[in-house]
Amino acid sequence: MSSEKINLQEKLAKFSEHWSPRVIAQMNDYQFKLAKFKGEFTWHAHKDTDEVFLVIEGKMGIEFKDKVVELSEGEMYVVPKGVEHKPFAHEECKVMLIEPAGVVNTGDAGGELTAQNDVWV
Amino acid sequence: MSSEKINLQEKLAKFSEHWSPRVIAQMNDYQFKLAKFKGEFTWHAHKDTDEVFLVIEGKMGIEFKDKVVELSEGEMYVVPKGVEHKPFAHEECKVMLIEPAGVVNTGDAGGELTAQNDVWV
Repeated sequence: MSSEKINLQEKLAKFSEHWSPRVIAQMNDYQFKLAKFKGEFTWHAHKDTDEVFLVIEGKMGIEFKDKVVELSEGEMYVVPKGVEHKPFAHEECKVMLIEPAGVVNTGDAGGELTAQNDVWV
Repeated sequence: MSSEKINLQEKLAKFSEHWSPRVIAQMNDYQFKLAKFKGEFTWHAHKDTDEVFLVIEGKMGIEFKDKVVELSEGEMYVVPKGVEHKPFAHEECKVMLIEPAGVVNTGDAGGELTAQNDVWV
């Protein structure tokens, strides 16, 4: 349980890897993670949970089977449980993810972009 | 379940009341709320849940029995379950709150600052 304030930019300065979320806070059994996106991620779904993306800096998109959602700084999106999606970013984008602790970044898909889970920064 | 992107500034422009959180998104059984703080809130605690404050614009503070935490834009804080706290803001501050659906803003304290719950904007 952190009892310190958390500065998003300070945390973002501490890592550079893309598609590798770092946990910055926990609220009950949910975690707040920061990630840097660049390029194309993997198609995947999280069968047990919704997932929130909040753009801190830059632009990103989320491809769905039936549409593409583009997000800029100060915009957020709730990907519903079980819905296949593929995040992407043409330029580096800094993103906050909010989801239950234990959620794996590639969901049900696995593969080489699967990041180690529960890595705090 | 919203399947639209959510722009924080657009949502903030839709209300002006202080200490009156508006729900903008739901993820599983958790809600994301926006609020405008100005002045002093009520001492209270949430006995069943942690609560997250993320400053979108401006400055705010949280008084605890043993310290004061000051938060600026891009900073967040997890108030642990059951811990008494009193938010304040000398000038208007725009804040995102994240907590389980059903949490009342004044927690166990009640009083005239108690806002209607589950009001979406």
